[in-house]
Amino acid sequence: MYNKKMYELGTKPSAIRNLFEYGKIRKSQIGSDNVFDFSLGNPSVPCPEIVNQTLIDLINNTESTKLHGYTSAVGDDGVRCAICDYLNKTYAANVDKNLIYLTVGAAASLTITFNAILNPGDEVVVIAPFFPEYQVFIEKANGKVVVVQSEENTFLPDVLKIKEKITSRTKAVLINYPNNPTGVMIDEVTLKALCNVLKEKEIEYGHPIYLISDEPYRELLYNNKPYLFITNYYNNTVVCYSFSKSLSLPGERIGYVLVNPSCKNAKDVFFTICGAARALGFVCAPALFQYMIPNCLGYTSDLKVYELNRDLLYNNLTNIGYDVVKPDGAFYLFVKALEADANKFCETAKEFELLIVPSDSFGCSGYIRISYCVDTEMIKRSISSFKALYDKYME
Amino acid sequence: MYNKKMYELGTKPSAIRNLFEYGKIRKSQIGSDNVFDFSLGNPSVPCPEIVNQTLIDLINNTESTKLHGYTSAVGDDGVRCAICDYLNKTYAANVDKNLIYLTVGAAASLTITFNAILNPGDEVVVIAPFFPEYQVFIEKANGKVVVVQSEENTFLPDVLKIKEKITSRTKAVLINYPNNPTGVMIDEVTLKALCNVLKEKEIEYGHPIYLISDEPYRELLYNNKPYLFITNYYNNTVVCYSFSKSLSLPGERIGYVLVNPSCKNAKDVFFTICGAARALGFVCAPALFQYMIPNCLGYTSDLKVYELNRDLLYNNLTNIGYDVVKPDGAFYLFVKALEADANKFCETAKEFELLIVPSDSFGCSGYIRISYCVDTEMIKRSISSFKALYDKYME
Repeated sequence: MYNKKMYELGTKPSAIRNLFEYGKIRKSQIGSDNVFDFSLGNPSVPCPEIVNQTLIDLINNTESTKLHGYTSAVGDDGVRCAICDYLNKTYAANVDKNLIYLTVGAAASLTITFNAILNPGDEVVVIAPFFPEYQVFIEKANGKVVVVQSEENTFLPDVLKIKEKITSRTKAVLINYPNNPTGVMIDEVTLKALCNVLKEKEIEYGHPIYLISDEPYRELLYNNKPYLFITNYYNNTVVCYSFSKSLSLPGERIGYVLVNPSCKNAKDVFFTICGAARALGFVCAPALFQYMIPNCLGYTSDLKVYELNRDLLYNNLTNIGYDVVKPDGAFYLFVKALEADANKFCETAKEFELLIVPSDSFGCSGYIRISYCVDTEMIKRSISSFKALYDKYME
Repeated sequence: MYNKKMYELGTKPSAIRNLFEYGKIRKSQIGSDNVFDFSLGNPSVPCPEIVNQTLIDLINNTESTKLHGYTSAVGDDGVRCAICDYLNKTYAANVDKNLIYLTVGAAASLTITFNAILNPGDEVVVIAPFFPEYQVFIEKANGKVVVVQSEENTFLPDVLKIKEKITSRTKAVLINYPNNPTGVMIDEVTLKALCNVLKEKEIEYGHPIYLISDEPYRELLYNNKPYLFITNYYNNTVVCYSFSKSLSLPGERIGYVLVNPSCKNAKDVFFTICGAARALGFVCAPALFQYMIPNCLGYTSDLKVYELNRDLLYNNLTNIGYDVVKPDGAFYLFVKALEADANKFCETAKEFELLIVPSDSFGCSGYIRISYCVDTEMIKRSISSFKALYDKYME
């Protein structure tokens, strides 16, 4: 009657969301201090003060019909210019303001991009473990998801495996570093190797293979290395960004899509992005939050809290005996489950009031994701539970 | 290579947008006071003061991770509750907060609804003249647009013609009153006749025919009659609303979709809407603007300005000799072109610095749309041009 696929997407909530709902009930039963909820990737640190100051300044000092009126569909020109200048300065990049499209957050950046570049049946290579909505977005855009597992232990992209999976129907490869759910950042050697494979395959098949970089965690990097800005490495790139994580504004839905000026037919790809955004019903990104951007570029929420949380969890879990993937960024820790079935392991963890997400949700088995964008005190209180869980398996 | 249809949508700007761009150039040539730009439906009246006050209060007094954090995908529960209570009180309706889904504006409300209820090839009856994006949205959701012309002169829906066009593939009828581009409001007799036809056809074909009401202009009504709230007249209704016009916030993208509790399988239809919103990349409506809503329900921008503009234009154009459709609402005037080809007529109007939109953009011929959400002084200055244009044709 109505659309069955959409019905299924609406009724089948994600494992992460289920766990979060369970947590709410459990907290009401035994007190919120006694439940250790590591389920959601929801920033726990306030936005930098300059965000709210800028919003108030804008509201107080901008004429209403300008401030709250439609912007161009692509976004306000001054805002796009500021983003462009900031990226070029920060990453020694060469992006063009005319190839930046402001969006209602990273999810919109991705759906717009997929709907723009995919024709029915086109394949998108996705590297597991991956954010589960990728599959939803790609399939809604009539694309086909081709999953390639990351390298064991490092969780870096397995370039040889990716090479094997690229076919004449491959339209894009999607990467996400710092990664959700592993927290891993790609290194330059691996990135270059990946780009070389894609360039080879472009020549072999005679058409562009887009490298789509979903990078909401770009600024959440704790390895003191510069971020590897993807347009500097590969021509046919589309960057999908959101200010949700860097500025702790996930509810406000503000981000952008950027087409590399070196992309083949870059302007036409950009027009196609404009068309897809229009057809999906994104009229423009929220105006007030567009105008907030120029003042806040380069600022972030207090990332030291996340770094502290990471170290606290990483060191304690490693000391207990857990096998933890060394994370460079984002706010996730990826840990080997203590039994083959991560779902069962997470059920057992609930007995110790630990709410953690099985890796099966992310397209790989045998691991758990711990979101450490939480209160540091909760982490401290949770350590004895992680120890008890470990001991139960070691008995 | 990329998606051809999306490319075409991105490169072929609308006639309205073209005219607006022409106006910008023309203003720079001869001065903005000398160009009479009636092209865009962009609110010209500031938002009511309570909107900005509420935003500032929220920013100053709400914890950042709560204020700017993710809400539920459906929207904040308290906000949905406030909207529900307001609608039930204002329209003696019986809507349910659990069937309200907050969206990123009316365009999103529509694309989500079409993607939820349509299966490939399903037909949607659209009443001409109509907002041109309807076709873009329906076709992107794999639906087929079936155009039915309004009654001549009144521009009310032609119920008999609609009846003829309903087939076994008709999934929905889309209405929009007060109407863009005519400004006409449907009357109760016609609405009931339409609903009766749909009920008959539902029985004949054995499946629901959804009545989708796109009503961003609901509050912009100057006839002193109560608004005919659609859920009170027909069970299988979906209401698509936006605060863009009532609160002059078109850039902020905030609205909702509402499923009538009396709709067949209402909960399942709602789940399907949740699924479609998810797949299209709408994570949640902008949080700050969600929280703004409860305080501002029932407020509007100063609509007296629009009413004054309407009267000024309607009376003057009628006096000159133009044949003007009597408008009850929105901020548009629909006027008979003085030659059969409205496109040519609008080109001639440009000679008098009048920027008006030919009705062909809205799926019907021989008329023009005048957007009167403009400065009242500009209207006064434009009257002599309308007179000169008329005289030219009467020579």
